[in-house]
Amino acid sequence: MDPRIREHAEIVASHSVDLQAGDDVVLQLPPAAAGLGVALHEVIGDRGANPVPLAANDRFDRAFRRSRDSFETPDHLLALIEECDVYIKVRADTNVSETSDVDPETTAAYSQAHQPILDERLSKRWCLTQFPAPANAQLAEMSTDAYEDFVWDAIIKDWDAVRKHQQQLADILQPASEVRIVSGDTTDVRMSIEGNHARNDYGEYNLPGGEVFTAPVVDSVEGEVLFDKPLYHQGREVIDAFLRFEEGEVVDHAEAKNEDVLREVLDTDDGARRLGELGIGMNRDIDQFTYNMLFDEKMGDTVHMAVGRAYEVTVGEDNEQNESAVHVDMIVDMSEDSYIEVDGERIQEDGTFMFEEGGTN
Amino acid sequence: MDPRIREHAEIVASHSVDLQAGDDVVLQLPPAAAGLGVALHEVIGDRGANPVPLAANDRFDRAFRRSRDSFETPDHLLALIEECDVYIKVRADTNVSETSDVDPETTAAYSQAHQPILDERLSKRWCLTQFPAPANAQLAEMSTDAYEDFVWDAIIKDWDAVRKHQQQLADILQPASEVRIVSGDTTDVRMSIEGNHARNDYGEYNLPGGEVFTAPVVDSVEGEVLFDKPLYHQGREVIDAFLRFEEGEVVDHAEAKNEDVLREVLDTDDGARRLGELGIGMNRDIDQFTYNMLFDEKMGDTVHMAVGRAYEVTVGEDNEQNESAVHVDMIVDMSEDSYIEVDGERIQEDGTFMFEEGGTN
Repeated sequence: MDPRIREHAEIVASHSVDLQAGDDVVLQLPPAAAGLGVALHEVIGDRGANPVPLAANDRFDRAFRRSRDSFETPDHLLALIEECDVYIKVRADTNVSETSDVDPETTAAYSQAHQPILDERLSKRWCLTQFPAPANAQLAEMSTDAYEDFVWDAIIKDWDAVRKHQQQLADILQPASEVRIVSGDTTDVRMSIEGNHARNDYGEYNLPGGEVFTAPVVDSVEGEVLFDKPLYHQGREVIDAFLRFEEGEVVDHAEAKNEDVLREVLDTDDGARRLGELGIGMNRDIDQFTYNMLFDEKMGDTVHMAVGRAYEVTVGEDNEQNESAVHVDMIVDMSEDSYIEVDGERIQEDGTFMFEEGGTN
Repeated sequence: MDPRIREHAEIVASHSVDLQAGDDVVLQLPPAAAGLGVALHEVIGDRGANPVPLAANDRFDRAFRRSRDSFETPDHLLALIEECDVYIKVRADTNVSETSDVDPETTAAYSQAHQPILDERLSKRWCLTQFPAPANAQLAEMSTDAYEDFVWDAIIKDWDAVRKHQQQLADILQPASEVRIVSGDTTDVRMSIEGNHARNDYGEYNLPGGEVFTAPVVDSVEGEVLFDKPLYHQGREVIDAFLRFEEGEVVDHAEAKNEDVLREVLDTDDGARRLGELGIGMNRDIDQFTYNMLFDEKMGDTVHMAVGRAYEVTVGEDNEQNESAVHVDMIVDMSEDSYIEVDGERIQEDGTFMFEEGGTN
């Protein structure tokens, strides 16, 4: 076994989910992540916890979704999640386009039926991570070996140092009221984050971590955003998604490729037309775009916003939590001709923070 | 997709588990059975049921078992099984020896901790079936293509005709008291089956089916048996297992290869030293020995006995159900110099039943 696989598993157990003896663990594992599955079983055994591996298989999902026209919440799966202490989800594709011929409306209906499962998962100690599978390397236009280096360099690192560096941004956002994001002449958007929580993501729920994120106050988002980094959703690429917000709601949208994908996302439910997250990428070890949101959204010099569900941990007790069956992140490049303003002060300009060398402060 | 895979899935759904709309289904699927996994998801979707696929992976099991020295019942897995209506377990190996370097004592402890899971599974509509994977073909010393023909010929058939043929034997055993099995000068064993139930296995719980089976009255087994067909247990072959019974209990045993495997089985618990099953193989379409108990025990001209757990469905209400964490089948060749006597009457001689052409009646 590549020793990095075992290191990866150790970080998941000790850093991300703080695994304890007696923990009942659910592992959601695709076939291409079998290597990490073995290492996780070793580590879970070493610590005296109890694993149940779920087979995550996009070919199964595709076959099932295409053969039903309506969906129920699977009570037995809900019971499994309710009874577990820790949920570890590993991503690793065999073919990233495996569900590309599933009607997005079908997938939205499926997601809605599974929302109680998602709610329950997010109430546990949980972690989402990535195993460097060949299909993911292919999507990134990298060799598998180079992609392995990329993934494990991003994951196997000093997360305590990351935490300290990022806390500087979290400390700016936590007490703040208004955030304005400007990039070129295509993005100028303002939102309140007053009363919501700025979370420092240093590899707990997401591995790799590397962002500070919060939730916009639901009705406060005003302006326009051109998400000039592409995204993959359900196996299809969306390029140059453009959203215009009024009183928090998407009132206009456009995109250059696969425009039906985004429309279906926005039509999922009321919450899908509102922002559930504002995130600021700070992980400069993620130095290339790999069409994988778990990595892309953490890149330095980027900002991302998600339509749909807000994470409970980001929402203040007096504020509304945006509810939705979806949570779809989209990214804005902030490396040039761009700035982030917090309560009227520029805290980042062309990707450099005020607390970094070369920053404005 | 090979059309036989879809036919296989249809037989599981319609014949074996009588799948209904709204059923919550657990699928236990190894990686080598992915093809059948896809077909089962199609069929489950078509019928409006809800699948949850568990990853059955011997490499995971090995890693976990070797890293713990004691085991707990996983409550979250138990909750999943309790909430399900249907349990479908598919066998298909990538390497049949994957758990061969796990200490049998460890495996016995693991099995004991998982007994409540097994109990719960057996209380559901359930089915155990086989996908023809290359490693299983290798064990049978067959090409994968020839093994596919073998497996699907045994599975895709007229199970109603099988049911009728086998019912003739079940009708003999159901009211009977004593069974005596004699083969050459190495096997002569007697047992009571009085008050227990003779079950006709025509592809419901086991697919393929093809046997009539019952449970011996726990303390009634007397005599000697040489199981002259080999068996694989936990990836290791046991040859010429010999058991001597007094008052139902194994008082002496010997075997020609891997003798520690059988000893560990017998030492699992009290019930592991007593018979939990007597079965008579009747499926003449299974025409070769493939080191796979799901098939081997159904071969015509054979009898099998299992040490350990008795199936609840075979035990009469006034009789004791043998309890154990294990259920290990072993086979006696009955094709030559052999007979089965029921209440003093020879009902099979050299493999031919009295109700068949050439039979003694």
